[in-house]
Amino acid sequence: MVSIGLIAAFFTTVSFIPQALKTLKTRDTSGISLPMYIMFFLGVSLWIVYGLEINDSSIVIGNSCVLMFIVPILYIKIKAVSAEKVPT
Amino acid sequence: MVSIGLIAAFFTTVSFIPQALKTLKTRDTSGISLPMYIMFFLGVSLWIVYGLEINDSSIVIGNSCVLMFIVPILYIKIKAVSAEKVPT
Repeated sequence: MVSIGLIAAFFTTVSFIPQALKTLKTRDTSGISLPMYIMFFLGVSLWIVYGLEINDSSIVIGNSCVLMFIVPILYIKIKAVSAEKVPT
Repeated sequence: MVSIGLIAAFFTTVSFIPQALKTLKTRDTSGISLPMYIMFFLGVSLWIVYGLEINDSSIVIGNSCVLMFIVPILYIKIKAVSAEKVPT
């Protein structure tokens, strides 16, 4: 039986895909919190370091996927904030 | 030494606080993806079930905090979408 943990990890990981696609399509980041994505980026990066430290490939792979999805969101948000188009 | 995993969990958990505060304050959810928060809500709920199943209180507590932070975001987004003010 596939563990509930794996299904949970699947949903929390792929959940960032629709947000990344929406942000790439609409460039609308006014409602998105920059501090959230900076902290989340930091947290996910630390999960990857932790996964490498304890040699757990599922933690490394899962969080690397999340990192891949949130980088475009963070990039577009930072660009919009630095162009003073939207608040942080 | 505090484990990197604990620090990672801290950042990925508290990162939703600024988003919740911003959404509660601005009610601006046009750039926020409804499918993301539905999937994330499902994933976090499954993490809590998993934590209960393996008797790991840190997984249960951490994800319960995240659930607490994302519920207002999800609620405000669903209200805005159902009032046809914003796209999903």
